[in-house]
Order: sequence, then structure tokens, then C-alpha cells
Amino acid sequence: MSENRELSTVLPVAPTRGRLRPLGLDEVRITGGFWARRRETNATATLAHCRDWMERVGWTGNFRAVAEGRIQHDRHGREFADSEVYKLLEAMAWQAACGTGAALDPDIAALTEAVASAQEPDGYLNTAFGHPGQQPRYSDLEWGHELYCYGFLIQAGVAQARARGGGEGKGELTKVALRAADHICATFGRGGIERVCGHAEIEMALVELARLTGEQRYLDQAALFIDRRGQGTLADGEFGRVYHQDDVPVRDAMALRGHAVRALYLASGAVDVAVETGDEELLAAVVRQWEAGVARRTYLTGGMGSHHRDEAFGDDFVLPPDRAYSETCAGVASVQLGWRLLLATGDPRYADLAERTLFNVVATSPSEDGRSFFYANTLHRRHRGAVPAADEVSPRAQSSLRAPWFAVSCCPTNVARTLAQLPAYLATADDQGVQLHQYADAEITTTLTGGHTVALSVRTDYPSGGNVTVRIDSSPPAHPWTLSLRVPAWTEGATAYLVDPDGTCRTVDPGTAEITRMFVPGDEIRLELPVAPRWIAPDPRIDAVRGTVAVQRGPLVYCAESVDLPDGHEVDAVRVDPSVEPEDGPEGTVVAPGELVEQAEVDPSQAAWPYRPLDRATVSAAERAGIVLVPYNSWANRGPSTMRVWLPTTTEP
Amino acid sequence: MSENRELSTVLPVAPTRGRLRPLGLDEVRITGGFWARRRETNATATLAHCRDWMERVGWTGNFRAVAEGRIQHDRHGREFADSEVYKLLEAMAWQAACGTGAALDPDIAALTEAVASAQEPDGYLNTAFGHPGQQPRYSDLEWGHELYCYGFLIQAGVAQARARGGGEGKGELTKVALRAADHICATFGRGGIERVCGHAEIEMALVELARLTGEQRYLDQAALFIDRRGQGTLADGEFGRVYHQDDVPVRDAMALRGHAVRALYLASGAVDVAVETGDEELLAAVVRQWEAGVARRTYLTGGMGSHHRDEAFGDDFVLPPDRAYSETCAGVASVQLGWRLLLATGDPRYADLAERTLFNVVATSPSEDGRSFFYANTLHRRHRGAVPAADEVSPRAQSSLRAPWFAVSCCPTNVARTLAQLPAYLATADDQGVQLHQYADAEITTTLTGGHTVALSVRTDYPSGGNVTVRIDSSPPAHPWTLSLRVPAWTEGATAYLVDPDGTCRTVDPGTAEITRMFVPGDEIRLELPVAPRWIAPDPRIDAVRGTVAVQRGPLVYCAESVDLPDGHEVDAVRVDPSVEPEDGPEGTVVAPGELVEQAEVDPSQAAWPYRPLDRATVSAAERAGIVLVPYNSWANRGPSTMRVWLPTTTEP
Repeated sequence: MSENRELSTVLPVAPTRGRLRPLGLDEVRITGGFWARRRETNATATLAHCRDWMERVGWTGNFRAVAEGRIQHDRHGREFADSEVYKLLEAMAWQAACGTGAALDPDIAALTEAVASAQEPDGYLNTAFGHPGQQPRYSDLEWGHELYCYGFLIQAGVAQARARGGGEGKGELTKVALRAADHICATFGRGGIERVCGHAEIEMALVELARLTGEQRYLDQAALFIDRRGQGTLADGEFGRVYHQDDVPVRDAMALRGHAVRALYLASGAVDVAVETGDEELLAAVVRQWEAGVARRTYLTGGMGSHHRDEAFGDDFVLPPDRAYSETCAGVASVQLGWRLLLATGDPRYADLAERTLFNVVATSPSEDGRSFFYANTLHRRHRGAVPAADEVSPRAQSSLRAPWFAVSCCPTNVARTLAQLPAYLATADDQGVQLHQYADAEITTTLTGGHTVALSVRTDYPSGGNVTVRIDSSPPAHPWTLSLRVPAWTEGATAYLVDPDGTCRTVDPGTAEITRMFVPGDEIRLELPVAPRWIAPDPRIDAVRGTVAVQRGPLVYCAESVDLPDGHEVDAVRVDPSVEPEDGPEGTVVAPGELVEQAEVDPSQAAWPYRPLDRATVSAAERAGIVLVPYNSWANRGPSTMRVWLPTTTEP
Repeated sequence: MSENRELSTVLPVAPTRGRLRPLGLDEVRITGGFWARRRETNATATLAHCRDWMERVGWTGNFRAVAEGRIQHDRHGREFADSEVYKLLEAMAWQAACGTGAALDPDIAALTEAVASAQEPDGYLNTAFGHPGQQPRYSDLEWGHELYCYGFLIQAGVAQARARGGGEGKGELTKVALRAADHICATFGRGGIERVCGHAEIEMALVELARLTGEQRYLDQAALFIDRRGQGTLADGEFGRVYHQDDVPVRDAMALRGHAVRALYLASGAVDVAVETGDEELLAAVVRQWEAGVARRTYLTGGMGSHHRDEAFGDDFVLPPDRAYSETCAGVASVQLGWRLLLATGDPRYADLAERTLFNVVATSPSEDGRSFFYANTLHRRHRGAVPAADEVSPRAQSSLRAPWFAVSCCPTNVARTLAQLPAYLATADDQGVQLHQYADAEITTTLTGGHTVALSVRTDYPSGGNVTVRIDSSPPAHPWTLSLRVPAWTEGATAYLVDPDGTCRTVDPGTAEITRMFVPGDEIRLELPVAPRWIAPDPRIDAVRGTVAVQRGPLVYCAESVDLPDGHEVDAVRVDPSVEPEDGPEGTVVAPGELVEQAEVDPSQAAWPYRPLDRATVSAAERAGIVLVPYNSWANRGPSTMRVWLPTTTEP
């Protein structure tokens, strides 16, 4: 691992060591395309949407109620509602750092003041515990989420310290976070409450605060929490200790397991601790868990979590599309974990999964207008259902349709903070040069080892198109360096090309393509990725999708949506013929050869009992049709519909 | 409907009208075979097991704690724990009626005395509410289960009135139940609390009490509860009003929906009200819901409920085998509902589903020793897991393995009361004669219209064998009557025969076979049912089992269990060849042609990501094998194992 490198000061994640050096929001700008549009919606619609909803449902008011001594009568929301305010503050900080400038300052200042007003003299800060008429502090570590809330407070405080924006009050939230962190170390250190929080999150926050401040005690406290996890310090409950990952120590666990968001936040914190302490064993344990989770417990979309009951990972290969949970926050958390593993190891497979998850989970959650969100991201919707009203709070995940706000509303603010910091996930640097991990129109400027400044611009219509052109805008004279480009794993079996500045073209395999030379300004490097639509087959051990195929086009997973079918058909009538390749259709669609079957509704014996002797099973009539497929991340933007990703084949009943 | 008929006094369900007249436990005895063995285990092991556990975990002690004024510190168990004591009392009452005699009297007396001691002067009886330090009475109708508990109290009180046994204290529980019922009518009648309980159950109990006592007001109160359901008198919660069936009035609902046990208890109560009030519209509504539920929301085993999260029915055709919930209590409730519909209409399809559910859900739940129970009845277990310890309380449904007791322990006592009253589900009578609905070694004696006594004995090795011999032991001279025999729907497409007393043989179709004559003692009628094993195919709309088949043999669903596979194979290696018929193997097993595949664990790219371009999907090596299958109800009695009912075919990957 490299050490003592110069890091940007505008970084969400700033490890002091690791294979790759992250680039900050001052070094990478997204200038157009798929993600620029979503980031614009996030900045102009989602941030205000979250702010307004939290004012309306009383979650920001909780802080004022504490300050004014009336919290026992006036608290609103679930026990973790404080964290949503912190996550919004973090999103605003990164957004302000990306050039929005002073526009967000009043909001940041007002929310920061509200939060600060509720902090106790000893640093304690939580609106749900410890005040007159409430349960005592830390009396319910399993479900109380106090340390979880501190985690987001600290991350927001770090963001405010690192980002521009905040006006005169800039840094106030950082002070609040530092007081909270000192309180945590005093309370949960050795000899204190030697337990953990029911929901991991504090770990990565404390490491980041240690990185910001250089204070070893925050890192030590994070390492303590990692080591305590899995020692059974939490009570056993109906979901078992595995729900909180408190069943097995982090170092010993073999797979991602239990509550998906908890598992992924914990793993992220463990990587942070491992990197800062040089703990290769701990890092290897997380890599092993990630590998098992990705190989056996992940949806085609990158989504994680297949249980509704406990929002948890299922057993290996339990990946039902119609009961997929695939919580948006688990997608966000998976991207966070992958980023940390990528920085630590340089292995492009982490960027592969992050790309898949960003395009098919994180981008799927918000509606086109940025004012409603999927909480769960099902891969098969069987009935159209009613879209939640714009002025109503929805239960989480109940309808599997986008809703403006939830009683448990972790996902909207998590999408907001991810989109706000997204430029930081595009590229890295190391002693040899610059690495591009995600493709978007972007401008990148950084200083390489030895003080050499390089600047590049990326132009692409990815993911619609597969051509990525990197133009060298600035390069040190007579100093060779290496440009590395991720060749996505999804190109397996198709051919990708790299064209160097003098027009030489060569094929490149999935992994990393490198080009080392003395670049001069104006040089262009082109990566040509084969984005033609392709049939994807599942591992036969995923029983729930046996006899089906899916379509992927570049990194995008496609789906059939009933609004594209003729004559009021629902998606369950679709059969596709995988012996013929799917083709590009108009406006980003794909057309797959197939047929629409008439389900045997009219056969009374079939209708009465859905199982029959094999020799008496009925065959349905079918009409040939080209089945129009759309990107999964765009579904449910055209009114109520049914939808499915995995499509039965014409060779199956 | 017939009215004013003479009913046995030893009946669990005693409608005053309906197409068929139930026979009491004084009229039907099970004398041997499959159910006799399970009833013996129930009587000799399960009843004492439940009694001991409830003493140990403090649930019986709760009643004493109320009586002694120390409940605020000493209450144990969930809010509905009282109901388990009542269900055990009911089971003991029916068991005592079946010839166990006075052996259970001390237990019945002791438990009755404990219950009675906790009743308030105004009839209120619940150990979780209304005492010093507890929430007020009826302050949480959504989750408090107070009326649910009364329902089981009243059913136990009715059982004690109708059954033999109980010694000197006999009838004491009936008095407690009557006081409670009067309290309910006073509290929840018109002008009182005009709401319903979050868990239906009180409805069928009040109707049965009206049947016992002839008191119209109990029936009126039950009808009120049915009419109020679906009016939104319960608060909306995370699972939605549908969870409590409070979303749509009973008369308007189109399918069984929401929490499965709640839905089935409610439907049973609605049938009871409909029958007693002659409300054909209400009866038709329940029939419609049953039809939709059975056609689209029921497992091959007869199990109901496909969500773990809310223990609920899924959308149509959402029937994942690996996340099947199929709660044992939902199986019990489905049998209760089917019995009421059978008595009301005479339609044999209700007995068909009851048979399937009894053999494949109710019989599956208890272990061979009657001391541990499935709460959920999965159709596919993917990892062996650890069998719960004999001395530990398990969370419900967590492991999908049999456990001795659960924190929510509704299933063991529900199995116990069902097995105790099982003889009452075998046969009925009407003006024409006697109907046999379920096949077991039995002796049946009843008096037909006109005072003609008939007696018959049934001899069979059903369900292992398909021959059922009915011997006429007593018949009125020169008086013709009709013996009706259910020809199970599972015989569809195979041939069943009926042989009359003079040896004449004819084929009979699924439905009802009748033979009318002047029987003389010694006459034998033989039904020959084709129990050879057969492949069963699912409706193509059940996505979760696409590309698979199952084996059924008679009414028994079979499964592959890993303990029967060679060389440590797990069941997910099994592929079967449905082009060849399965055959009977030794000791009740079935042997299916097929193969065992070596999963491609060794291919690193396959291991890393379980989805691949179709043209690069790997094919696994396979070895031919005869796959041994065992009855599903017998699985998990030979140590930890993996298991699956739906078997992938050799034509699929």
C-alpha cells in the first residue's frame, strides 16, 4: 500500500493508505450525460423535497423540541429519524462542493443550528432517548439506533469540514460531530459500555473522523466496535443475532448475511479499520464475504437482500425476483463497500459491481422528477397497483412502487447523498497515473506523484453507447504516465477495443486496459465497448428463475413493462425465444423475439387448482410478437404497470 | 338446507342447518392406521408436552399471577399466550371424549381452576391487559388479541360442555366462557366499542356458543363482528389494513388475503354466521374467496401463506417453495374452513383440499415423537441447519426446522386440538344415508332419519394403499339407504373402481360415488383408488417452480431428502426425467428416474457471478441415478437434511 500520499481535501472517503488514491470533488466534475441529468434533478428537486418532508413530518422539529424541553410530547418519526436530517446535511455539503455554491447555505445553516441546539453539554445528541419522559440513553442498543444516528452526524460533520458551502456557520456541524465522537469514546471505550449498536454505521464514520482530524482515538474506537461485533453483546431476538451480524466475529464470517444494509455498512467500516491499521487479515475476511455475497446472494441488478421479513440476505441462491427486497439503501451501501475495496486493492471487479448497482439500483430508485423513490426494488411486479399519493407517507416497501416519503425514509436521503458525491467514484490516481472506473462525461484534473499535473476530459454517451473518448487536456512534458481504463466484466465473450492516440486499435479483455506514454494535450484515447443487447442466463442453482433469461445491454438490465405490450396484456404473458438475438429498438428500447400467451383462465379445472398430472397439463395458445424491453431503471415512470426482468422462454410452458 | 335435525352432542362444529349433518366423536372412532398412530402420539406425548412447556415458560402461571395480584411483575409470554392454555384445554376435552376417559381429569381441572381464578367479576379475562401496571383493556385492538383469546376460551368451554371428561369440575370452564361471552356482548355490542379484534377468531367461537346454548345474542354479536370487518375500524399499520382483513368488507372481498391464519379464521366465522342466519350472499362470498385462494394462492401441499414478513397470502401465483411460509396454523384453519363449507354445501372439493392439507401440512408439523413441531412448512430446504435444542424456546419459523416450543407457540396446541377432534372430520349423514369424506380405519354408528341405526367399519391402509373396504355392521331391515364415498380429485386421469357387495365393479370419476341399496350386515363395499406415483406439473404462472415437477402418490406429496442421496449430495443436485414414470420403492418410498449433477463450483468465473451470457453458460456433468423420494410429511425425522418437493427436470440446466 502507498502511504503518506497527498489527498484532495474534498473527499467522502479519504484513506491514508491503499492501492489507489481517490480523487476529490475538486478534481473530478461530471459535465453531462446519464448521471449529470440525475445529479441536476437531485440538486434542484430531491434536496428540497427531503427538506420539506422532514419539516412537514416533524423530524427536523424534533431537534427544536429537545432544545425547548418539550420533546416528551412532541417527538415524531421512528427512533432513527434524526439520521435523515444528518444524511440530508451531508448531501447538501457535497452538493455545495460541486459548484452549487452559496445557494444551499441558508438550508445548511438552519438545519445545523437545529441539530446543534439539541446537543447536551456532554456531547450526547439524540431526540429519541434520554430526555424527560423518554427511555434512558443506551437502554436499547439493539433497536435504539443511537450510534447509527451518530454515524451519519459524524459523516455530515466531516463533509461540512471538507466541502465548500455553509456560509458563516461552516464548521459548526463538525464541532457538533467532534463533541459527539468524544462522548462516544468516553462512553463506549474500554471499561465503558462494552457493546455495539444494533445497526452498524458508526464504524466508518469514526474512521473518517480520524482521517479528518488525525486523532487516533476515533480509529481505536471504530476498531473496538468492529472487534466487539459478533461477540453476542446484543440480545437475541426473533430474527436471530445474525440480523445484527452479532452471531459471528467479523474476522470469522464467511458471507454477507443478516440485514443487508447493516451487513454492508459493517463491512465498509471493517475495510476502513483494516486499511488504517494495516490489518490484512481483516481486509481478507471482508473480501471473502463480498465474494460469497456476490457469487450467491446478489440479484442481476446488483441488488442485495432477498427477504422482506428481516430485510436480509437470503440463503445462497435464494433470489426470488417477485419478492426481491433489494433495498435502495443496500444498493447505496454496496457501492460504498465496493469503493473502499477498490481503493484498498485496485481490483476492477469492485468497480464492475458498483457500476451495475449504480445503473440498476441507485438510478432506479428515484422517479424522473426526483420526488418519489423505490424503497424496495423488485425484479417482477405482478399487479399494477395504485401509485402512492404525493402527499402521503407510505410504509416502507409495502407496495414496491415509488412513494414520496416513507415512515422509514432512509432511502431518499441515501440516494441524495450518493448522487451528490458521485463524481468522487469515477476516477483514482496512483504513482503510475490515472485510472478511470466509471464512464461519464467528465473533466478530471489531478497532480501525479512528483507534482505533475494532468487534466483529461471524458466524452461518451455511455451507457446508451459504448464509445468512451478520453482527451488529454494537460500532461507534463516528457513525462510518461499510464492511463488505465476499466473494461467491464459484462463484455465477457464480446469484443472490446482500445484505440490509442495514433489510431492503433487493439482488443482488450475484461479487467483493466492500460496505455502508457508521453501524452500530449489533444491526444485522444478511445475505448469501444460492445453494448449490443445480449441474453443472460442464471446459474441453475437460482431456482426462482429457472427456465428464464434476461436481457442486458452494456451495464443496463432491461425489463418488460406492461405499458409496452399490446392489447392490455400483462407481462406474465411474455415468452421469449433465446435462440434469436435481441436487437436495438427505438429510443433506448430493445426488441426481443417472442410471443404472448393466452393464459388458460378459461379452463375451469385449471382455474380450480394450479397443479395437474403432467400428462394432463394444458398448453396455452400463443401469438408471435416482438417484445419491447426498456431499461429497468426507467420502469414505473409511465403510470401503473406490471414488470419483469426474467423472461420465460418459449421452450418452457 | 335441512333444519331441526338431531345432532350428536359431542361435536366440535354443530351447525343447526346445512347440506350435511356432522357426526360426533360418540359416532365415529378411528381404530387404526396413519391417523390412529398420530392420535396416539398426540394423546400420550403432545398433550403433556404442551402442558409442561406452558408451565415452564410461565403461561399457565400468568393466570395465577392475576389471581394473586402480582401480574404486573410476573407476566410471561406474548400478548396472546393465554390462548395456548385454552387450546390445550380444548384438545384435552376432545381427547377425553375419545375414550381416554378420566386420565386427563386432573390436568383439565387444574388448568380450568387457574383460568377461572383470573376472571374479573364482570367477565373480563386476559392476563396481559387491564391490571395494575398494564395497558388498559381494549386499548390495542390491533395487536392485543383480547377477543382472539376469548375465542379460544369459548371454544374450550364449548368443548368441555360437549365432551366427556373433566371429572367433578366438568362444566366449570363453560361457565367461565359464558361469563366472558356476556361481557363481550355488553362491551362490543351496538353502542359499545364498535370495532373488531386484529385477529379474527371470536366469530366462530360465539356462533358455536350460540349453537350450544340457543342464545341468539351470541350469534348476533358474531354477525356484528363479521359486518364490522373491513370498515377500517383498526388503525392502518406497516402491513396495511389487508393484514387484518380490515381493508374490504367480508361480503365484497374477492380472495383470501392478508395474514393467512387471520383470513381463514375470519372466513370460518363468516360461514358459521351465514349458515345460522341463512345468509346465502355471505356464504357465496366466502366460497368465491376460497376458490380464488385455492386456484392461485395455495401450495401443492395445501399449505397457505407465502410471505414470511407478514405471515400472509402472496399475490396470485406467488408461491416460492424455498420461502414458503405455509404456517401449520393456516393448515389447521384451512381444514376448519373446508369442513364448514363441506357441511354447508356437500361439495366434495372441500374434503379434497382438507385431505391434502391434513396429510401434507397438519401431519407434517409434529415430529414422530410428538414433541417438536414445524411452525412454517417450507417446500425446499437448502441447507441442513442445526435442529433446535429440546430444552430451548425457538423464535417462530426462523429455522424452518421442528422445535419443541416457540416464543409464538400457536402451532403445537393447534395440532393437538385438530388431532384430538379428527374423527369428527371423517363422515357425515343426511336424509339419504352416510357420506365418507376421509379414509381411515374407523367404526361409525349413527341414526338415520326415521330412527334407523346404521353401523359400518372401514378398513384400509390408506394412504399407503388405495383400497378402502366398508363393511356394513348394522343396517335397518328392508330400508334402502345410500353410502356415498368421496373419489378424490387427485385420481384425475387415472382410474378408480367401486365394487359393490355382490362383486360388481364399475369405474368412478372424481367427485362422489354412491351406492344405494338395502344393505345387510356383512355387506362389503370396496373403493379402489389408483395410488401409483405420478408426476405433477405446476401452472406456468407459478414462476418459482418453472421447469420442475413434483411427485404425488395418492394424497401424499413426496420430496427428495438429502439423507437418501448417495455420497453426501444435497438435494439441489437432483434432476429428474419426467418422460419416465416414477415407481414404488421399498418402505413407502418412490424411486424416480433422474440424475445427480455436479454443480460447477470449480469454475471460478461461474463462482464469481451467477449470471452469464447465454452462450457462455456452463453445462454441469451428471450421473444417472434413481432418486429416492419420501412422503413430505415424514421429512426431517432422520437428522439434519436438505429437502425439496419441486424437482428440476433433466431437460433444464
